Amino acid sequence: MLNEFCKKPLWEVSRTLADVAMGRKPAELVIKGATLVNVCTKELLKNVDVAVAEGRIAMVGDCAHCVGDGTTVVEAKGKYLAPAFMDGHIHIESSMLTASEYAKAVLAHGTCAVFIDPHEICNVLGFDGVRYMLEDAARTPLKTILTTPSCVPAVPGFEDTGASVGPEDVAETMKWKECAGLGEMMNFPGILSSDERTHAIVGETLKAGKIVTGHYSVPETGSGLNAYIASGVRCCHESTREEDALAKMRLGMYAMFREGSAWHDLKEVGKAVTNHDIDSRFACLVSDDAHPHTLKEQGHLDHIVRRAVEYGIDPVEAIQMVTINVAQCFELEHDLGSIAPSKCANMVLLDDLNSCHVTSVWIDGDLVAKDGETIAKWEAYTYPEKATHSLHLSPLELKDFEIPHAGDSVKARVIEAIGGKTSTIERFATLPVKDGKVQADAGQDVLKAFVFERHHETGKRGYGFLKGFGIKEGALAQTVSHDAHNLLVVGTNDEDMLLAANELIRVGGGMIAVKNGKILGEVPLPIAGLMSEKSLDEMVALVSNLETAWKDMGCTLPSPFMTMSIIPLACLPELRLTNRGVVDCRTFRFVSPIVED
Amino acid sequence: MLNEFCKKPLWEVSRTLADVAMGRKPAELVIKGATLVNVCTKELLKNVDVAVAEGRIAMVGDCAHCVGDGTTVVEAKGKYLAPAFMDGHIHIESSMLTASEYAKAVLAHGTCAVFIDPHEICNVLGFDGVRYMLEDAARTPLKTILTTPSCVPAVPGFEDTGASVGPEDVAETMKWKECAGLGEMMNFPGILSSDERTHAIVGETLKAGKIVTGHYSVPETGSGLNAYIASGVRCCHESTREEDALAKMRLGMYAMFREGSAWHDLKEVGKAVTNHDIDSRFACLVSDDAHPHTLKEQGHLDHIVRRAVEYGIDPVEAIQMVTINVAQCFELEHDLGSIAPSKCANMVLLDDLNSCHVTSVWIDGDLVAKDGETIAKWEAYTYPEKATHSLHLSPLELKDFEIPHAGDSVKARVIEAIGGKTSTIERFATLPVKDGKVQADAGQDVLKAFVFERHHETGKRGYGFLKGFGIKEGALAQTVSHDAHNLLVVGTNDEDMLLAANELIRVGGGMIAVKNGKILGEVPLPIAGLMSEKSLDEMVALVSNLETAWKDMGCTLPSPFMTMSIIPLACLPELRLTNRGVVDCRTFRFVSPIVED
Repeated sequence: MLNEFCKKPLWEVSRTLADVAMGRKPAELVIKGATLVNVCTKELLKNVDVAVAEGRIAMVGDCAHCVGDGTTVVEAKGKYLAPAFMDGHIHIESSMLTASEYAKAVLAHGTCAVFIDPHEICNVLGFDGVRYMLEDAARTPLKTILTTPSCVPAVPGFEDTGASVGPEDVAETMKWKECAGLGEMMNFPGILSSDERTHAIVGETLKAGKIVTGHYSVPETGSGLNAYIASGVRCCHESTREEDALAKMRLGMYAMFREGSAWHDLKEVGKAVTNHDIDSRFACLVSDDAHPHTLKEQGHLDHIVRRAVEYGIDPVEAIQMVTINVAQCFELEHDLGSIAPSKCANMVLLDDLNSCHVTSVWIDGDLVAKDGETIAKWEAYTYPEKATHSLHLSPLELKDFEIPHAGDSVKARVIEAIGGKTSTIERFATLPVKDGKVQADAGQDVLKAFVFERHHETGKRGYGFLKGFGIKEGALAQTVSHDAHNLLVVGTNDEDMLLAANELIRVGGGMIAVKNGKILGEVPLPIAGLMSEKSLDEMVALVSNLETAWKDMGCTLPSPFMTMSIIPLACLPELRLTNRGVVDCRTFRFVSPIVED
Repeated sequence: MLNEFCKKPLWEVSRTLADVAMGRKPAELVIKGATLVNVCTKELLKNVDVAVAEGRIAMVGDCAHCVGDGTTVVEAKGKYLAPAFMDGHIHIESSMLTASEYAKAVLAHGTCAVFIDPHEICNVLGFDGVRYMLEDAARTPLKTILTTPSCVPAVPGFEDTGASVGPEDVAETMKWKECAGLGEMMNFPGILSSDERTHAIVGETLKAGKIVTGHYSVPETGSGLNAYIASGVRCCHESTREEDALAKMRLGMYAMFREGSAWHDLKEVGKAVTNHDIDSRFACLVSDDAHPHTLKEQGHLDHIVRRAVEYGIDPVEAIQMVTINVAQCFELEHDLGSIAPSKCANMVLLDDLNSCHVTSVWIDGDLVAKDGETIAKWEAYTYPEKATHSLHLSPLELKDFEIPHAGDSVKARVIEAIGGKTSTIERFATLPVKDGKVQADAGQDVLKAFVFERHHETGKRGYGFLKGFGIKEGALAQTVSHDAHNLLVVGTNDEDMLLAANELIRVGGGMIAVKNGKILGEVPLPIAGLMSEKSLDEMVALVSNLETAWKDMGCTLPSPFMTMSIIPLACLPELRLTNRGVVDCRTFRFVSPIVED
């Protein structure tokens, strides 16, 4: 694949690089005397210099002759010099930050490139939203590489989204210079069943010579996994068991070991490498989702490398998994992923190998971060009105939260959420009916829940009942509600639900907790209802405050907004609630929340 | 890079592959119960089945459900199933065989793909010759992948060739579906000196997103090697020392360990892997040049893998070096180089791992060779007249071999060839002058030598004196004379030289030995003066006969036709003879063969 991810293409600067290596021109930057983390040969090599010009590496070795007037010389004795890190699969939207603020956060931790799948913003704003994100990202030094969202909507026919993606859209985006391939192909049932349109989406990517990234989330390593890989999917970050990751690598699929904010798979899947004497070139480390507090308190890939080392993976091997292996997965190794002549000068200095403590970060030869702070500056991007006014929903009224029913009580179908898990359980409960309206029942921990379509003012809404949150009194609402990101409102009483919903409509989306007519916590997310232009520190404070509010309301779930956010995701078992109603995801049928015996 | 090297593109057959893996359609071929040589994870995995459809692998694992009516089932219990082998750098012309006959020879040894650099035929016939070779090759199952000749002529200004290659030619061929990159960039001095045209030739390859193959033949691992790699050259087969190969891999260059007919580098350079605990993903095994007797008696990559194992390289690692590593070098690993779902079904069955004894070979799912015999059939290709009448030279006369000089004797500059080495030594000798003509002197082992331009009837010719062949009486001639492939004639007397030269002119080129007016041995090479349409067995017999003739004439050199063939190659030290005269390759100046004190 032609590389668009460097400061300058190699063919424009090759003569200069030769001049520098040969000592005819001075390098712009020389890093001296480091211990090189050589990811090509998996070695530590002492006392190595690196010379850089035009954003690329001209020489690795003794570079004394490359130093001249104007050369910046960095003494690195006693430090480790490694390629800067690359995350093979992430969703910026999970950080709730803009692409810029996300870049600012991760650059300081040694990340030089992220392969993004912006399917959240794409569900809301279509490819306009994707372009906004790319334009924002392009101002930063972070190489923000697109994998085109493949499954928008996630579950066609069961929800209303702001956009949909077909093979022709994929074909078009494959021409974009920022695009390296296709985003996670979550519709593995479509692949396995040889669905024509799903295969066409993959096919348009293959025709462009680009990479299809995967999402095979079932613990199965036989026919299904083979069919999935045979169809052209090259990597997958969804392994949760040692044997799944091992099977994928053995089948020539890049197994991306995930250590995100919500899903901590690395400890288990890392055993695929530590328990087996294998060539690990098909292993990568990825974050998938990183929330503000993770980025703030733990870091990004530096944190994941630390975890990998803690779990017994050799440090140099772990660094291969965030550098050269990622580059080879995307067939970009000719430009990215190693410290070698001709490659982009993306490098980190580490104080210590095991702790992976990053002290300096260069991208394309420019120092972008130092001592944990991003020092690169760039002009702010203003998201257009389409992005900042994406909640197309008029203020609601009390009657919007009424569930009429005759009699004194009713048998209801209830969705029970489980803390820290993605699945739900189908339950049944008898709920009181008052004045002809079904009531929530905090005593049984059953809340009323509504999803309001918010993209095209269709007025479509679904309702149901939720269990497992532990809320005694009040309401929660959020527009981060995968993948359609309609407005989800749950609560014990209609008044608090109304307030929560209308406040989010007022601010353009976000997450909120309300009790007795009072807003206890609120995270406004005015960009597509998913992200904020606020800084990482501000977002950490807001989210932390919201979490406290939830706890105060009696919520017992860990990261409750995560559990909330996937209540509408109609591809996960057992029951889900979308803006069209309750879906039984075992049979893919709508079911009634009220059970008439 | 988009792959043009499979029977069908993946996007056309992905639904069928999914159908087969899921058991909805029967596979065309199932290989059962083999021990899989898994080059992805560097493991041996017992009792593995592989299912194939549409030329590609649908499933690896338990494939019982993929067998149906019409499925060919191969029982492979007790055998090893490995990806078929790929040679990352070869010149078909060295085999003296056509592309078809070459394919027939190597398929039986498990080779499925060769990355050819047809710079010999290109020097003679330009890109017409390259196309002839590709058209011939395209009828065979051998994936004959082009790397465009980069250095035609090899040494501009010092010889006359049939063609020349510039950046615009390279740009044009990069569009060819058979092309994966640029052939060996032998002009490393041009790269190191930042020569604009040389960098442009590399640049056109990089612009096309393709691979630049290298030739860095000096034992230097500092500035020069760095400058060379920094300029975009991705691999090199010219290492002769352990430290050279190691340095290249450490610098992210694919080190191609060579074990050819003429050059046996593997024993030494293999130590880069066996003496160092390194990740060997950047190591490949290549042949570069294989003569008929090597192909006949030893094999191809199977032979080189055997040697590698003998030199201490782990057998699975050695097989990685002729499969997945080669595929990754050319960024074709998404389709080639491993036995994994979606990949082309290029596979070999081996009786035994250490001896690498190939018993069956499949390419794109078709059985092409069995028990050492190529069983695939294809229609013969007829090389056009331009190829078979490439010796544009009228019959010579005795006076063409006269070197006039006054007096009784003359001091001559003599080129001494050294058996088994590429270099020559400058010597001086006093030669007799008879009837005003300088004479050869077999007593001093000094022969007269002539190179006649034979491409454009320019009449340009060079003469000189040769030492080291040991010929007592007679003449040798050949049109295999790198890289311009002009007509080289050497001998003790003019009559034999005349006969040798005119016989080659009559048959359209080749190699010949003449003594006392009698042809003792002759290998006609009527295709471009380089190759024959004869079979491998016939060529082995002819070459063997010629070698016997040489020996009978007193020649003491091993493989004397190799030593002969590089006498005109004006990029190797010290002295060379081209059709323009004697070149001192230390100073790149013409020097006189007659030394006037």
